[in-house]
Amino acid sequence: MGYRTYLELAKPLLGDKELIATGMRAEIDRCRTAIERALKGQRVAIVSSGDAGIYGMAGLILEVCDREGLRVSLTEDPMNTDFLLDIIPGVPALAACAALLGAPLMHDFVSISLSDLLTPWETIQKRIRLAAQGDFVVVIYNPKSKKRHWQLGVARELLLQFRHPQTPVGIVRNAMREGQTVVVTTLLDLMNHPVDMQTLIIVGNSTTYIYGSYMVTPRGYLAKCRDPEKD
Amino acid sequence: MGYRTYLELAKPLLGDKELIATGMRAEIDRCRTAIERALKGQRVAIVSSGDAGIYGMAGLILEVCDREGLRVSLTEDPMNTDFLLDIIPGVPALAACAALLGAPLMHDFVSISLSDLLTPWETIQKRIRLAAQGDFVVVIYNPKSKKRHWQLGVARELLLQFRHPQTPVGIVRNAMREGQTVVVTTLLDLMNHPVDMQTLIIVGNSTTYIYGSYMVTPRGYLAKCRDPEKD
Repeated sequence: MGYRTYLELAKPLLGDKELIATGMRAEIDRCRTAIERALKGQRVAIVSSGDAGIYGMAGLILEVCDREGLRVSLTEDPMNTDFLLDIIPGVPALAACAALLGAPLMHDFVSISLSDLLTPWETIQKRIRLAAQGDFVVVIYNPKSKKRHWQLGVARELLLQFRHPQTPVGIVRNAMREGQTVVVTTLLDLMNHPVDMQTLIIVGNSTTYIYGSYMVTPRGYLAKCRDPEKD
Repeated sequence: MGYRTYLELAKPLLGDKELIATGMRAEIDRCRTAIERALKGQRVAIVSSGDAGIYGMAGLILEVCDREGLRVSLTEDPMNTDFLLDIIPGVPALAACAALLGAPLMHDFVSISLSDLLTPWETIQKRIRLAAQGDFVVVIYNPKSKKRHWQLGVARELLLQFRHPQTPVGIVRNAMREGQTVVVTTLLDLMNHPVDMQTLIIVGNSTTYIYGSYMVTPRGYLAKCRDPEKD
């Protein structure tokens, strides 16, 4: 089961399994159908893109099970369990995009979604400001959509209050998919590049630099000029 | 090439390839050896655990290439490149551990390493405070080592200034490896559980709750009580 586009991408791996493709705004219905089938004893997998546990479906399926009063479990306990529910980790978009950019996530980072449909914009804004203050690398999910145009510009202004305009920024669209584009730019020029729903943005910290076509956040080994006493 | 323990774990996948295992404190030497061999035209892979781009080897190899004045590239450009250097993403420890705990990373989160060998403790402390203030879920890498005992306790105190003592906390040791343990506890009881170098800790935000054996941070779909206008 899954959003149509993702099942399409996974098709080569799915063999002759039954596929239940649903539209974009049907997340809760999708969970309910999966639960119905699991209660009948069927083995169901809900597919997310990237990692299901990072802005994916892992949380929602657990929430819906909870609300429906079901007893689910990670381990075999057939006496006290309606069905087993296992979360399978994947390569998150942030790791895929970081790899395409070089190594921007080598130091402490935050992941923030700019979608204010489920989170008040005040909360998002506060988090961006705190992340900027803490000199975290900032990973931005959902920077823009057809209906949300202005959030990225405001986020950039907030970051510029604490970070140099020449701070490296990576913009990755359609990571590891058809139509992939990878751009390394600066906070100053961020708004001059196309950004859409399939885009992830990584804003460097104060030490991030450009080396050839790579964006690199140093961990600090070389700054110490010796092999570190790694722990 | 890689740290001995990780090559051992990867062995079933390595076939008859030449293996170069090095010790723990030999990160920079490892990069230099890899570079020497790549310059001779050999195809070399440096193995990290989890994702190479998150506190792994991806950044260091780029830093060493830069310092040695090499021209490396992600794309085929044999005229202007000493060798190709590609970063392959993996499943990061934070995603693997989140999946074992349920769905703690469904909302904005920070990743912080408590190792103060390469980062001043003042910086780490400031970041923990800002992350707590922003109600981010907090992923803690390197919570403890043989030489570092007190950092986790201080981090907990800082978090308790902003977060309820009953905030759910997940502690995962040896994720997806022999000896794996998964504990869901609270910020109050965090110090009563064993933590070591192979442990990752995830501290929930103000909405994170326990459902059966799972730790769940809601995204907000169900709170809206309708299918959201997902973007």
